[in-house]
Amino acid sequence: MKRNKNDIFFLKQAFQIAKKAEGFTSPNPLVGALIVKNDKIISQGYHKKAGLAHAEIEAIRKAKQNLKGSTLYINLEPCCHFGKTPPCVDEVIKSGIRRAVISTVDPNPKVCNNSIRKMKQAGIKVRLGLLRKEAEKLNEVFFKNMKENRPFVVAKLAQTLDGKIAASSGISKWITSGCSRKFAKGLRDKYDSVVVGINTVLKDNPKLNGLRKIPYKVVIDPDLRINKNIFIVKHNPGKLIVFISKKNKSNKVIKGARIIPIKERKGRLDLNSMLLELFRLGITSCFVEGGSQTLGNFLDAKLIDKMHFFISPKILGGKYALTSIGAEGYESLDKCPYLKEPEIKKIGPDILVTGYPSYDGK
Amino acid sequence: MKRNKNDIFFLKQAFQIAKKAEGFTSPNPLVGALIVKNDKIISQGYHKKAGLAHAEIEAIRKAKQNLKGSTLYINLEPCCHFGKTPPCVDEVIKSGIRRAVISTVDPNPKVCNNSIRKMKQAGIKVRLGLLRKEAEKLNEVFFKNMKENRPFVVAKLAQTLDGKIAASSGISKWITSGCSRKFAKGLRDKYDSVVVGINTVLKDNPKLNGLRKIPYKVVIDPDLRINKNIFIVKHNPGKLIVFISKKNKSNKVIKGARIIPIKERKGRLDLNSMLLELFRLGITSCFVEGGSQTLGNFLDAKLIDKMHFFISPKILGGKYALTSIGAEGYESLDKCPYLKEPEIKKIGPDILVTGYPSYDGK
Repeated sequence: MKRNKNDIFFLKQAFQIAKKAEGFTSPNPLVGALIVKNDKIISQGYHKKAGLAHAEIEAIRKAKQNLKGSTLYINLEPCCHFGKTPPCVDEVIKSGIRRAVISTVDPNPKVCNNSIRKMKQAGIKVRLGLLRKEAEKLNEVFFKNMKENRPFVVAKLAQTLDGKIAASSGISKWITSGCSRKFAKGLRDKYDSVVVGINTVLKDNPKLNGLRKIPYKVVIDPDLRINKNIFIVKHNPGKLIVFISKKNKSNKVIKGARIIPIKERKGRLDLNSMLLELFRLGITSCFVEGGSQTLGNFLDAKLIDKMHFFISPKILGGKYALTSIGAEGYESLDKCPYLKEPEIKKIGPDILVTGYPSYDGK
Repeated sequence: MKRNKNDIFFLKQAFQIAKKAEGFTSPNPLVGALIVKNDKIISQGYHKKAGLAHAEIEAIRKAKQNLKGSTLYINLEPCCHFGKTPPCVDEVIKSGIRRAVISTVDPNPKVCNNSIRKMKQAGIKVRLGLLRKEAEKLNEVFFKNMKENRPFVVAKLAQTLDGKIAASSGISKWITSGCSRKFAKGLRDKYDSVVVGINTVLKDNPKLNGLRKIPYKVVIDPDLRINKNIFIVKHNPGKLIVFISKKNKSNKVIKGARIIPIKERKGRLDLNSMLLELFRLGITSCFVEGGSQTLGNFLDAKLIDKMHFFISPKILGGKYALTSIGAEGYESLDKCPYLKEPEIKKIGPDILVTGYPSYDGK
């Protein structure tokens, strides 16, 4: 029992270390590693960026003591293949580590359990599955990528208490407080790209940057209405990706930006195709910020994996005010998606509801 | 200090006793009284129903000991006028009570401070103002009645997370969980009347009863479209009040119900006039349940005093789905109402946000 308690304690610390690089390891997962000997942490490491050392390797290399008889705590199975770095599992085996506590197997089919088997064969005792759920959540982007070969999609919206994002006059500034807006800006740092519809771009001319990084900016713009006066065209166009309809025959050029034609489905750009294109470009996650129509299209297509509702205590009213999630919508309350056990949090005067939409209608 | 601490302790108990009659004392306030001697409660009472004894009288009469030197704890100043019962203040003075701890003066202009003055003149020490805010909240209906001569208006709505009360198909059952719906039904018990628009009546044919009482049912029905097949017409029509437009010339009769013509303002029934008519009929509070248009009209008229948002974790989406609060709406986010420090509570899978709209736009 004592051993179990310590296992959770140390493993949680590995999680904490892993999180330091949140948003910066793409396309790789977040990994934190702790090496413990006689109940003392003797080394630790985390994966900082694709191409740099993996967490367990960093921990092994930084250790100032002999690792013989030590235990490795890590949230994800070590790799066993050559990527940008050589396989970690061999170095773990060589290090003298005698026991490993691992939350989950690596969902990457190239790894999936192979490293664990190899470690066991080499005589390392493996405890697998501790804090598994938490570890999958920590790397929800990576797990989605590996299992479905598409980016993880997070929707964010800021609405009044009565579900509106603009008055009937069109005025939409500001729905939520400064502190919610800053928090939302910080969320962009966690993902590879920010996605918006062309109407939002033309109306608000947003910068779409994070607090600590400049994400890819993806604009859904069937008729290629974006123009050179727009902020995200003028600044870092190399980070701009514009999806247009295959039907569009314009030869307008947006200097420095990628323009990608995709097919339509029911008169709208096909979001599945768009996500596949983005994934091919190495974009593992999309932070979809609106507007109403774009969020609605993603919801209709059942493509939203996670949602953040920032709800202000303001009440706009109005039959013609703009609803937060538009488009087609669902026909009945038995079949519409819902958030299962959402997390509810106060941010300044606002409420933040976060959850994972369930589309099974149960 | 010790005395102060005990004062709050006993006064809070008086509040608790007062609440027992919540929803049943109209048009009178909720009042609880505690008589304490040598730090022991020797008697207590609360006002149960208009016409029955006031709280302090019940406590005095029930006491089995001599009250000499005792302290009276009460949330509201005793009355000093003949209503359905004789003035309480005289009986308090006669009783031998030596000290009184009172949260608020009675806002009724016939009383307002007169009883306190009289008690002081008779040598009773009065501590006034302890838990004043809480006492005003306890009797928010009564205070609104006395200060503005109109009923207290509470709006209740049940919406999806994205602010909708029906899918574009019209389907609206059920937005929230059974336990939220039962909770909302219980809220009806606190108020004299339930108010709905005719569209809601014709579409849902609701019963509009509380858990423990049958409130007045008020229907806003400019063109007198209600008919004899409707539940609230068939059951307890004596509790039904239908507001129609003065312009309506129909001579349709709804047996047993009151039909009250009122003027229009901007093509809608004038809600101020409606509230005054209800107040004249002795209705001190209105629980407005919708639909979208009715709630919007009340919000536009700045007549909602308190709001309950039941928010389910369902997400409907849809540009043409019905918004929770319709009508005209506000033009900007600086001028629209907001809830100041709303209370947030989980009810089953749903979220309940309760607060008092502030219309000053700050």
